[in-house]
Amino acid sequence: MKLALKKVDIVEVGPRDGFQNIKKFIPTEVKLQIIEGLIAAGIKKMEITSFVNPKAIAQMADASDITEAILASKYRNFQPIALVPNFVGAKKAYQLGIKEVTYVISISEAHNQANIRRTHEQSFAELKQIQDEFPGLTIRVDAATAFGCPFAGEVSDELILQYLDTVADLGVKEVILCDTIGVANPEQVARIARMVQERYRGIAFGLHLHDTRGLGLANTLAGLQAGMTTIEVAVGGLGGCPFAPGASGNTATEDLLNMLHGMKIETGIDMDKYMQVVELVKQHIQPILSSHMATICKPE
Amino acid sequence: MKLALKKVDIVEVGPRDGFQNIKKFIPTEVKLQIIEGLIAAGIKKMEITSFVNPKAIAQMADASDITEAILASKYRNFQPIALVPNFVGAKKAYQLGIKEVTYVISISEAHNQANIRRTHEQSFAELKQIQDEFPGLTIRVDAATAFGCPFAGEVSDELILQYLDTVADLGVKEVILCDTIGVANPEQVARIARMVQERYRGIAFGLHLHDTRGLGLANTLAGLQAGMTTIEVAVGGLGGCPFAPGASGNTATEDLLNMLHGMKIETGIDMDKYMQVVELVKQHIQPILSSHMATICKPE
Repeated sequence: MKLALKKVDIVEVGPRDGFQNIKKFIPTEVKLQIIEGLIAAGIKKMEITSFVNPKAIAQMADASDITEAILASKYRNFQPIALVPNFVGAKKAYQLGIKEVTYVISISEAHNQANIRRTHEQSFAELKQIQDEFPGLTIRVDAATAFGCPFAGEVSDELILQYLDTVADLGVKEVILCDTIGVANPEQVARIARMVQERYRGIAFGLHLHDTRGLGLANTLAGLQAGMTTIEVAVGGLGGCPFAPGASGNTATEDLLNMLHGMKIETGIDMDKYMQVVELVKQHIQPILSSHMATICKPE
Repeated sequence: MKLALKKVDIVEVGPRDGFQNIKKFIPTEVKLQIIEGLIAAGIKKMEITSFVNPKAIAQMADASDITEAILASKYRNFQPIALVPNFVGAKKAYQLGIKEVTYVISISEAHNQANIRRTHEQSFAELKQIQDEFPGLTIRVDAATAFGCPFAGEVSDELILQYLDTVADLGVKEVILCDTIGVANPEQVARIARMVQERYRGIAFGLHLHDTRGLGLANTLAGLQAGMTTIEVAVGGLGGCPFAPGASGNTATEDLLNMLHGMKIETGIDMDKYMQVVELVKQHIQPILSSHMATICKPE
């Protein structure tokens, strides 16, 4: 079980995937305080916001303000990422000076329709348009429903490969396989991780594994064993379904940090400083988090 | 990551480790309804109660009633186990007809003193006395604090081996390595699992991994990869610290079942029937459980 890898690249998605699932508007200054705290703790890559239509997700209405404030700080060794669901979002992000965006296309077309209201063909065409219009913009693709779909059920290997063939043809260099509804199991994660890494040598793959069924860390472990080293996680385990205690959406960054640091794997993140941000989240956003490290019992 | 094993032996400890951590007395008939439901779902081995001094743990005051009722049902293919902290408890269990007991000795002597109020020497002497007085009684040993101690901190390999040498000399055939405070990490579990299995060929080892830091399933996965096939878990994730949502004590049996069945590993347990028992636990004992499967969000 000894892992060959010595370092994991953590991508923080709390301020995007976490915040967007919270109904009550979080003041922009609180969001910024948290984002800045995460950077201070050592986060090197973070989805700081989403350029989505505010009518769809009101929480993200301050995407431009957040982006401007973070870019103005000119952090070194920190790469802000914005999620963009479409061309309009990509344009806004690009014009503000964002250098890297996450573009979402579900592997299951049924989910893509529900989430983005586009067919695969439309989504890929729009991706091409973004590439053509905004040269120099790094586009990573979130491959949602890679391990199962709430509408279509199982996602076949054929469907995954067909999807990735198209992504590869478009010259995309980074793809994140997302377990959008937390249905993956460790064997499946390891198998698919191996399959795609062997077939697409030009693509760097990462994992975004929801913890809905408590498998976030076990699935991450399986992914690490299969050679994946980029993992997306959210502060406090925010995201997904915040109203069911214990049944979180995202795997909590601090739970992953605790596992990795215990295994002597480097993350470049300071656990104490990170936990200070978790406290901020508890104070300002959600007092009860699904994160284990946030709600840990003191040993008797 | 493909696991060699095809079958995992699940030992249910909810009615002992789970119930004993609940302050309010659970009526005996509710306990029995749950235990019977667990057996009906396919549980083959279960700690049904603990013969501990009721002054120490009032919840276990009905240990004799529970034992008599379960033994009277003469289940086939089901092995009831009682936890016994000392000779007096073992005697009671034996006299009622119990054939298998779990005897607890912490690897950390500081924890053994706090938990059982005995030195190692006293605990091992009492184990010998139980073996001598109750021939035919199968004694499995719970090696508490195998991965860390709340008082002594790290538990060294030397201490583990010294402890197991004594246990092996006493002829014990089954030892459960317990992560009593949930501090283990997957690499540690795999390493120690391999070490003890190689050294003590005559002992069957199992794992009891608390989920305090969210590592229950990841640590279990590491243990399975290292060849461990006996896993102790608790219905609903009961146990440990039920008052901090998300920060459970035990790994939830249903969360483990979901992982194993997803990986096509047999458990002999019917998930639907098992979840009916989880509902009973929610109704009669604790409405909010740390188990993920018990509190799962419906996919959107």
